[in-house]
Amino acid sequence: MTGERQMVPMDRYEALSLLGSVSMGRVVFTDQALPAIRPVNHLVDGNGGVIIRTHVGSAISSLVHASGSGVVLAFEADDIDQEKHTGWSVVVTGMASLVEDAEAVSHYEHALRSWVNYPMDQIIRIQPDLVTGYWLTADGSP
Amino acid sequence: MTGERQMVPMDRYEALSLLGSVSMGRVVFTDQALPAIRPVNHLVDGNGGVIIRTHVGSAISSLVHASGSGVVLAFEADDIDQEKHTGWSVVVTGMASLVEDAEAVSHYEHALRSWVNYPMDQIIRIQPDLVTGYWLTADGSP
Repeated sequence: MTGERQMVPMDRYEALSLLGSVSMGRVVFTDQALPAIRPVNHLVDGNGGVIIRTHVGSAISSLVHASGSGVVLAFEADDIDQEKHTGWSVVVTGMASLVEDAEAVSHYEHALRSWVNYPMDQIIRIQPDLVTGYWLTADGSP
Repeated sequence: MTGERQMVPMDRYEALSLLGSVSMGRVVFTDQALPAIRPVNHLVDGNGGVIIRTHVGSAISSLVHASGSGVVLAFEADDIDQEKHTGWSVVVTGMASLVEDAEAVSHYEHALRSWVNYPMDQIIRIQPDLVTGYWLTADGSP
């Protein structure tokens, strides 16, 4: 790196647009009182909700099922150059819920193909209650 | 993507080697009962500890200071191809502590340059109590 980076906050719209421009991020949660994180692929729906797939029995699925009143998850994506240390990061934090509407489930199962060889049969949506994002720039402009 | 990916676990040594091969990751913690995550640069010390810098007043610094018996943080790094969906992810979870030895602080302040224009005057070490890592591969081999 050649100098210090500026952290420049971005607005909610820009943050959600960037989040929707990449195919993977990391879901962040608390698992048995410990901080936990899993890389997953995702998409952003028309209302800024973050949609992910998981499988019955996963820590995330268990959390969402066990919580009658809902559980809060965070979701992070970034694109930061390892050499230049410039780029962006976005974090969405909000209530997570199981998507149960059959039509929506079918749509997301097609739109959000599972990466891995597990039956990813649960669709979870994270409500974008809190959206934060910033640019890391060399000169203060994105 | 052309097919399903296999998740192939890796051993602790390989996981820590990969973690040390990249300059940035994400620290994961609980902030006022909510899951939280921040991208940071890091290094891995000779005992597998993850060293990060932060500033007095940050959420992470406050957590580590407030907790007499220590606080558990997680740290994640990955390198996953957005197109091919192959690569790796490593998560270290363990007790975090403030590095206070003056010589060690000075060493890390030089070895781990801050990216951003904040006074990053705290060095935190995460003990690698739990280390998990996996490869995402197309055919089951890294």
